[in-house]
Amino acid sequence: MATHHTKVTHREGMSFDGELAGHTIPLDADPSVGGKDYGPTPKPLLLTSLAGCTAMDVTSILGKMQMPYDSFEVEVDGDTTDSHPKTYSAIRLRYVFTGSELDEAKIEKAVRLSQEKYCGVSAMLKQVSNVDYEIVMNPE
Amino acid sequence: MATHHTKVTHREGMSFDGELAGHTIPLDADPSVGGKDYGPTPKPLLLTSLAGCTAMDVTSILGKMQMPYDSFEVEVDGDTTDSHPKTYSAIRLRYVFTGSELDEAKIEKAVRLSQEKYCGVSAMLKQVSNVDYEIVMNPE
Repeated sequence: MATHHTKVTHREGMSFDGELAGHTIPLDADPSVGGKDYGPTPKPLLLTSLAGCTAMDVTSILGKMQMPYDSFEVEVDGDTTDSHPKTYSAIRLRYVFTGSELDEAKIEKAVRLSQEKYCGVSAMLKQVSNVDYEIVMNPE
Repeated sequence: MATHHTKVTHREGMSFDGELAGHTIPLDADPSVGGKDYGPTPKPLLLTSLAGCTAMDVTSILGKMQMPYDSFEVEVDGDTTDSHPKTYSAIRLRYVFTGSELDEAKIEKAVRLSQEKYCGVSAMLKQVSNVDYEIVMNPE
């Protein structure tokens, strides 16, 4: 077992400074409730966490498979419920690769391994939301 | 319904630039798997999201209650499981206030309202982890 630690410290208005492993993450509320865009709002940071978690799995696995790419992004959309507490009812991931030597089978395997075996953030969010994904290679 | 959007873009090695509402969030893997501390690791960003979400609820509610404080932090510890996918088996929140006019009943009510009614991140994580909290006023 490992224990991860983070902290947010009130700054002014609705803004906070998050601290995580020596890095500062500015946070602020939505302008509709007094935020001034000092940083992103906290809830969608869940989606950034998810994107980063699975993206690093895939990078690591494709590295071991020696599958080269020119660029790799993971985009995430999350649909919120309308009533409090507002949660994500659906989450859609989009793995986007460019490159001249992309191997579809290897990419699909890497993404599947992350989604089914390695990505802890995905494992948690799948229990509370509908999580879907698609893979896009060399989009126009 | 609202749809939140985020993206992570591969940079080099295991590092990524997260993008959320026009803000950049650098991310990197743990040094044990090739990270170089370009940013925090993605999974504990879940805990920063949780801390920020509930902290902003509490700030907003205490503002409406006109309960002044000198400082306010939310600290979070998350214990990971040992096997893949590594999730948080337990999460502990610590709401820490300093001030000369702290009203315990108002603070407890504000935290309870966030935990039970408003904080969507907490509502999601409670379904997959044991989430506890404590309130600390004017620690030594």
